[in-house]
Amino acid sequence: MDKVTGELKTDCVPYSQFKEHVGEVVNIKGVIHNIRDMSDFAFVLIRTARDVIQCVYSPEFSDYRMTDDVVEQASAKVSGKVVPSKTRDGSERYELQITGIDILSRPADIVPVVINKKQINAELSVNLDNRPVTLRNPKERAIFKIQEGIQRGFREYLTSQDFTEVHTPKINFAGAEGGTNVFRLDYFGKTVFLAQSPQLYKQTLIPVFERVFEIGPVFRAEHHDTSRHLNEYISMDFEMGFIDSFYDIMEMETGVLKYIMNLLREKYASEVALLGADIPEIDSIPCIRFKDAKEMCVRKLKNITDMHDFEPEEEAYLGKWAKQQYGSDFLFVTHFLTSKRPFYTMEDPEDPEVTLSFDLLFRGIEITSGGQRIHDYNEQVEKMKRLGMNPEEFDTYLMLHKYGAPPHGGLGLGLERLTMHLLGFKNVRSAAMFPRDINRVTP
Amino acid sequence: MDKVTGELKTDCVPYSQFKEHVGEVVNIKGVIHNIRDMSDFAFVLIRTARDVIQCVYSPEFSDYRMTDDVVEQASAKVSGKVVPSKTRDGSERYELQITGIDILSRPADIVPVVINKKQINAELSVNLDNRPVTLRNPKERAIFKIQEGIQRGFREYLTSQDFTEVHTPKINFAGAEGGTNVFRLDYFGKTVFLAQSPQLYKQTLIPVFERVFEIGPVFRAEHHDTSRHLNEYISMDFEMGFIDSFYDIMEMETGVLKYIMNLLREKYASEVALLGADIPEIDSIPCIRFKDAKEMCVRKLKNITDMHDFEPEEEAYLGKWAKQQYGSDFLFVTHFLTSKRPFYTMEDPEDPEVTLSFDLLFRGIEITSGGQRIHDYNEQVEKMKRLGMNPEEFDTYLMLHKYGAPPHGGLGLGLERLTMHLLGFKNVRSAAMFPRDINRVTP
Repeated sequence: MDKVTGELKTDCVPYSQFKEHVGEVVNIKGVIHNIRDMSDFAFVLIRTARDVIQCVYSPEFSDYRMTDDVVEQASAKVSGKVVPSKTRDGSERYELQITGIDILSRPADIVPVVINKKQINAELSVNLDNRPVTLRNPKERAIFKIQEGIQRGFREYLTSQDFTEVHTPKINFAGAEGGTNVFRLDYFGKTVFLAQSPQLYKQTLIPVFERVFEIGPVFRAEHHDTSRHLNEYISMDFEMGFIDSFYDIMEMETGVLKYIMNLLREKYASEVALLGADIPEIDSIPCIRFKDAKEMCVRKLKNITDMHDFEPEEEAYLGKWAKQQYGSDFLFVTHFLTSKRPFYTMEDPEDPEVTLSFDLLFRGIEITSGGQRIHDYNEQVEKMKRLGMNPEEFDTYLMLHKYGAPPHGGLGLGLERLTMHLLGFKNVRSAAMFPRDINRVTP
Repeated sequence: MDKVTGELKTDCVPYSQFKEHVGEVVNIKGVIHNIRDMSDFAFVLIRTARDVIQCVYSPEFSDYRMTDDVVEQASAKVSGKVVPSKTRDGSERYELQITGIDILSRPADIVPVVINKKQINAELSVNLDNRPVTLRNPKERAIFKIQEGIQRGFREYLTSQDFTEVHTPKINFAGAEGGTNVFRLDYFGKTVFLAQSPQLYKQTLIPVFERVFEIGPVFRAEHHDTSRHLNEYISMDFEMGFIDSFYDIMEMETGVLKYIMNLLREKYASEVALLGADIPEIDSIPCIRFKDAKEMCVRKLKNITDMHDFEPEEEAYLGKWAKQQYGSDFLFVTHFLTSKRPFYTMEDPEDPEVTLSFDLLFRGIEITSGGQRIHDYNEQVEKMKRLGMNPEEFDTYLMLHKYGAPPHGGLGLGLERLTMHLLGFKNVRSAAMFPRDINRVTP
């Protein structure tokens, strides 16, 4: 070839265009997902990037005769005549009457887990051990199309709001939230850390771009093995400058979530349907102060002893309350106690016991923490000292404050955790393509 | 506040709307970038997310009198009357006649590096040591808006071509390209590795999504300190299934690059102008085989001794040749030697000494490597054995081939390196926000 022009030619027709080709012979390419031999004819299901296309083989349709190399998981180019048909539930679809199959590649063995039934029926650990195979199941992969949609919505909305997308370093010289739960790394003889959060860097970029966001991996050396924790996950973070109050951050998050849910309904409808996902409608999100929420929990629930934070049963109760009282799947809880929030959180000038911060509950489970940050240099240095931290270890971070920072704040949102709760999973690993936990680093 | 609705209110007007407000008093928020006191009046330049807005103070304009807290790097809300004006080169613009300044936050010290001249005039190491400050210089930040545009173009184009965006794990149990140059990590008592590339994972996802891409960090423990290497960088990777030949990958890359360059011209025009960037026009990209390119280099250049790969001077020569011969800033070199390509590269069935692979040269420097991958299980296992690798160590990777993989291939493109060459920098660190090298992990 002498030159390439950037125009990729194909002689295949995507399923979405089948209706324009009824009665014609077209080509498709895909993986043979399922073969059901009915003695005088056969159904051959072809799995493409987003669809499973039913093709019907019968000697009546053409001179083509199916050969031994037409096996499940082989890749194939199939030609056939487009004909209208109906699914079991009566809705319209199109299928191909096969006139030829050209095998492009063959598997060496049959799959270790059944992947062409409605769903993977193996235990989660077996599913995860065989991820390169089990992700091929249409319902499994739909989870990660939804996940793509969530991060795409986050990005598209913030880009429309003049945020700049950034990538901050994952090899850090100090842990953002302190010394525990960080992975340590030998870096040419120095000990460095894997980023737990882009927190300090995204703040640093506020006087540069005013508004920034990042979608990228973070690493937490959690020593406990729970259904809610991953040791590596994708964090969606934003930070915005020149806020009037921390409610601006909550307004922005509400806008983000509305946009994401609409995007899922519009562009990911087939995956939403396949997974039976209940995508929330968002009109507005109610807010309650931590103190008021706590009082309500103490009144309504028994045995509440921790007055500084919520137990999971309190979050669940608050979720139900928001649904009953406001018809909302979401609830903002604001003004968390100063003692429970990180060193960079701004205290409420009207009551320094509480912070200008919030959590967002979704169906009774926390999915975000956010708040306004300290922007004044002396205030930040004094707070560090009060907390027993050494400001000198944070000298490059404190350049932000020393040389002028606008009022600002932001939040972080775990992509797998949001996916998990949106799809109603019990274990966050179901919403991670290749999860990392204390016992798992493969595949 | 009782409820948030997702509609953020502001009483400020962005610079892009100034022309609709001529003669009116409007508000803006930003950082005071520069104050030039001309005794009876003063220029106060306000730096916003993407602009620097000239404001003029004079006691004639209003009763407002400038106070001592109006200092450079303070954050401010400024009100003023919009008036048309002209830049030094005669082009139209708008400025504000100040009627009030409300200081929102103050710096604690003056900046250690001058950032309000046209460019940072300090040495690169000083610039990098002071990144939280130097990035505030409009020319420095423009580099990273261009970088945002490059990765945005990569993503938007591939999304339009039905690619799925994925995030693969950075904590890996094996190094994709072998055991050297990987960072090792203690993971709860096990030794694991930081991902050098998403290569093996993106291939694994081909039978799932057919087409995938990832934009994310990769880590290389390069022991040498050069102007071209970073130890952590952002890799833009794609992988596509059901290709007819590896030229399909080159067509896709050509489409990506055309889209990126058009996006930069259209949406990043002010940054392109500020940096004086020469954005290439792409019509088509010429191709030459490695063998033919090598013969030409040997004929034209002296002292070429390595017949298996290119020296930088050969790449430079080939870049000039492509420009003269074809008027192209880009050149694809194809069919690199099998001995020089990774274990997963497919050999040319017509000549197993060479591979179905390519590099892309941009203005005489390599910016991409790509090619078709082996999809047949036995072929891949045999090649691994021939290369002295143990296939058992790659058992989860080989599930791809064992259980059926379509013909596929892809490529990787370093974001910082492309930014560097597009902007004509001599050192890749200039194109990294917070570069990591053998001597630098701060800020």
